[in-house]
Amino acid sequence: MSMDRLIEKIIKKSNPTVVGLDPKLESLPPCLVEKYTAEYGNTLRAAAEAIYEFNCGLIDTLCGIVPAVKPQSAYYEMYGYEGVEVLKRTIAYARDKGMYVIADCKRNDIGSTASAYAAAYLGSVNVGGEEIEPFGADSLTVNGYLGVDGAEPFLKECRERDKSIFVLVKTSNPSSSDLQDLVAGTRTVYRAMADHACAWGQDMIGQHGYSNVGFVVGATYPTQLMELRRAYPQSFFLVPGYGAQGGSGKDLAGAFDRRGLGAIVNSSRGIIYAWKKTGNESGENYKEAAYEAAEAMRKDLQVYC
Amino acid sequence: MSMDRLIEKIIKKSNPTVVGLDPKLESLPPCLVEKYTAEYGNTLRAAAEAIYEFNCGLIDTLCGIVPAVKPQSAYYEMYGYEGVEVLKRTIAYARDKGMYVIADCKRNDIGSTASAYAAAYLGSVNVGGEEIEPFGADSLTVNGYLGVDGAEPFLKECRERDKSIFVLVKTSNPSSSDLQDLVAGTRTVYRAMADHACAWGQDMIGQHGYSNVGFVVGATYPTQLMELRRAYPQSFFLVPGYGAQGGSGKDLAGAFDRRGLGAIVNSSRGIIYAWKKTGNESGENYKEAAYEAAEAMRKDLQVYC
Repeated sequence: MSMDRLIEKIIKKSNPTVVGLDPKLESLPPCLVEKYTAEYGNTLRAAAEAIYEFNCGLIDTLCGIVPAVKPQSAYYEMYGYEGVEVLKRTIAYARDKGMYVIADCKRNDIGSTASAYAAAYLGSVNVGGEEIEPFGADSLTVNGYLGVDGAEPFLKECRERDKSIFVLVKTSNPSSSDLQDLVAGTRTVYRAMADHACAWGQDMIGQHGYSNVGFVVGATYPTQLMELRRAYPQSFFLVPGYGAQGGSGKDLAGAFDRRGLGAIVNSSRGIIYAWKKTGNESGENYKEAAYEAAEAMRKDLQVYC
Repeated sequence: MSMDRLIEKIIKKSNPTVVGLDPKLESLPPCLVEKYTAEYGNTLRAAAEAIYEFNCGLIDTLCGIVPAVKPQSAYYEMYGYEGVEVLKRTIAYARDKGMYVIADCKRNDIGSTASAYAAAYLGSVNVGGEEIEPFGADSLTVNGYLGVDGAEPFLKECRERDKSIFVLVKTSNPSSSDLQDLVAGTRTVYRAMADHACAWGQDMIGQHGYSNVGFVVGATYPTQLMELRRAYPQSFFLVPGYGAQGGSGKDLAGAFDRRGLGAIVNSSRGIIYAWKKTGNESGENYKEAAYEAAEAMRKDLQVYC
């Protein structure tokens, strides 16, 4: 099972961390940006190639201690198709280095269209008899607002190709309460979403007791994190909001089960832009700074697992 | 105001239709697929170039009678970055031909990330002082499950660059009831979403009385369509579900205001694949077939507006 593969990587590295690859050009080491704008001019191609070198450097440095990466699609799409091409290359590079890759795309649509998204990120398309994987990720984040027929095509890829998805349940942002905390009958909307997502994954429970259908639950809501952990013992959690968004190690206590499993915690800016706090203006030390920040995070989380 | 521009195009063409550009390779005219696989082999590049010629043919044929197109991002992403490059070219081509372009991406994320999506589809990015529009659409579909801070970056582009968004309120698919029809207090979840989206657009009401923040409401739910039209007189509706999904002209009665404005109705498969019902196996008549289907739809809708 796909979620088992993630869990085994976490156990092997003693580290329930996923590093978010959210590359914004203005936060990249200037030495990289200058290198590629010199070669390609002030173009999206230059931005994309700078991002690719940045990502490869991070992956090379972190793959020994971090089990997974989560490229955030928005930061590739914002650099046009050139950025999207680098998303594809980044996914392939990280998988080659043994990392589990969660494409953070939060895709959602009606069934026929969701099939196209599922094929794009988790499956393959057929061109003249040739089966081609457009992006080839291990896992995808999904927004379940459209209900089960919008989820089914993603579940199909999970079943048939041993992939996983993480469904948005309680997101890390301040206004997640606007809709998610509404109370419908005896339960909140986020609990209703959790009930659906839990049911969707019941036929895909792995050896470690977790389903291929996980939840996204923000570290910024520690009470709800604990509530959901207790209520859904078979749902693995992807936990954003640690670090730059305000969540800390102590907020994560409720995310893990007694074995220290049950969640993978994301940090993006706190790791990939750690070089900015070192005083090195060119950023040529970005890999070392990321390694130190990732090690500090691993230690912060190890008290729980 | 951006929504005014759409409305004026609808009035000028006497046609509240948006054609969904949802190109799946297996439904494209074989003559186009063969042309490009002969040139590029069985590759994503071949698929993408066949789609681009298909789209341009449709746009050329329809731009005189149809005010808008809605490329569905999933069908471009499924052909990898090569497909995404053709999404960009398709948007530019349709805008050059005077059509209003709604990028149907259903994007959603926390604020900082939503800013990246907003820049990608509605705004611009800065590379070394150069401002570049990665996709340059007029409008974007947005999933509001994350609440207002996830919507704000899109609203900013609407205000500053005169763009519009359509927020998913009541989607056209059968299981939209799973979450959207839950009753929280005195209102359904879709009404709660509508209340939020309505509030988000209050400072962007145009000359025709409609906001730059519209709703997505499915033609497959005519009762809810009428309910929402009455409750939100300043919210323009993007209405999917007509044609292949089962909605018909009579289901749309409630979507329009007394002036015959207030909604634009999407048809994808019923128009772009109309050639498949003509018995022509090569599909070389796809443009003529699409024109006839679009004219039939225009007549079907004209009783209401």
